Amino acid sequence: MGRLFSEKSITWDVETLQIHELIQKRWSPRAYSEKALEPEKLKVLFEAARWAASSSNEQPWRFLVTHKGTEAFTKLTSTLVGFNQTWAPHAPVMAVSFAKKNFSGKEMKNHYALHDTGAAMATLAIEATAQGLVIHGMGGFDHAKVRELFGVPEDFEIGAVFTIGYHGDPNTLPDVLKERELAPRTRKPLEEIIFEGEFGTAAKL
Amino acid sequence: MGRLFSEKSITWDVETLQIHELIQKRWSPRAYSEKALEPEKLKVLFEAARWAASSSNEQPWRFLVTHKGTEAFTKLTSTLVGFNQTWAPHAPVMAVSFAKKNFSGKEMKNHYALHDTGAAMATLAIEATAQGLVIHGMGGFDHAKVRELFGVPEDFEIGAVFTIGYHGDPNTLPDVLKERELAPRTRKPLEEIIFEGEFGTAAKL
Repeated sequence: MGRLFSEKSITWDVETLQIHELIQKRWSPRAYSEKALEPEKLKVLFEAARWAASSSNEQPWRFLVTHKGTEAFTKLTSTLVGFNQTWAPHAPVMAVSFAKKNFSGKEMKNHYALHDTGAAMATLAIEATAQGLVIHGMGGFDHAKVRELFGVPEDFEIGAVFTIGYHGDPNTLPDVLKERELAPRTRKPLEEIIFEGEFGTAAKL
Repeated sequence: MGRLFSEKSITWDVETLQIHELIQKRWSPRAYSEKALEPEKLKVLFEAARWAASSSNEQPWRFLVTHKGTEAFTKLTSTLVGFNQTWAPHAPVMAVSFAKKNFSGKEMKNHYALHDTGAAMATLAIEATAQGLVIHGMGGFDHAKVRELFGVPEDFEIGAVFTIGYHGDPNTLPDVLKERELAPRTRKPLEEIIFEGEFGTAAKL
């Protein structure tokens, strides 16, 4: 890590500032505003996800969307575990992703089913940033319960639950989550994750 | 699909034009220019990947980078299958991603290992678009051979091989690939992939 740069609650190392603003500013807060989500913005998010890359253009991703105040939203909320129960239900929209296990028309496993669904999610998150929105993906929920409550067929993997909305006031969060909300974002240094020659040897970039 | 809009070889339906330009213009061509890739641009791509979201901020992604003309590039090329052998070796850089199977410090499987590695890849691809570069991910390679040639430990899954460089002239491609390069990009309509209420019921967006 090199020199650090801070703005409000966000701290970056200086090299990070070279990356595109939409990637730099994308993050996963837990405080949501009461502001409703415009239907046309929601649609654009999924339109963006739709254009992610996938193995053999299989597009294994599927999404189920629920709106606060509906039965489906309450059902999805009931699958959340731990802290996710406290903050996530304040978002105006909660969704869940799925990944088709096999390639269509073949009984061949798609190794990239979750990989490409993750690519669609990242694309959706960057579009959200462009729209002034935030999303927060969660693995902390009862996968079997989602399958049962929403009739997810066996040939689909459960992906992630995620909230969508406008960023809110961190002071609305319980103390332990407020602390996390205001903590600097951190990542492993490049030397630990980019290799050359053989696995584990840091690349000289 | 609504009205169509074309520019050069790329055709979009009109709704797609509402998404951010970087997402709209990201694609996976096969024709690479002879132009070398600036080291500082390569570094920024991985810097972008590093800031993707991941489950518990595990950052399961790792990347190995090879440069045309090196032994490592030749080794990675030797793992490619089918058509990938014909076009991919023209790119100045070829890389491969990996995903850590378990959460660090725990013997607990990370369901999101490949999912989050796919998110990092998508983020890298969007940064590449911002830098005027293109990347093309491939599943068509010998995964076991990559593991053997680069000493990939058992606790990492093999992700995707991908090329990085400047887009080149489609006329340099064999006919069958040139045809694919110039074909309109297509995706499933939203009605097939976005649900509400229960899995399989098209959402009214």
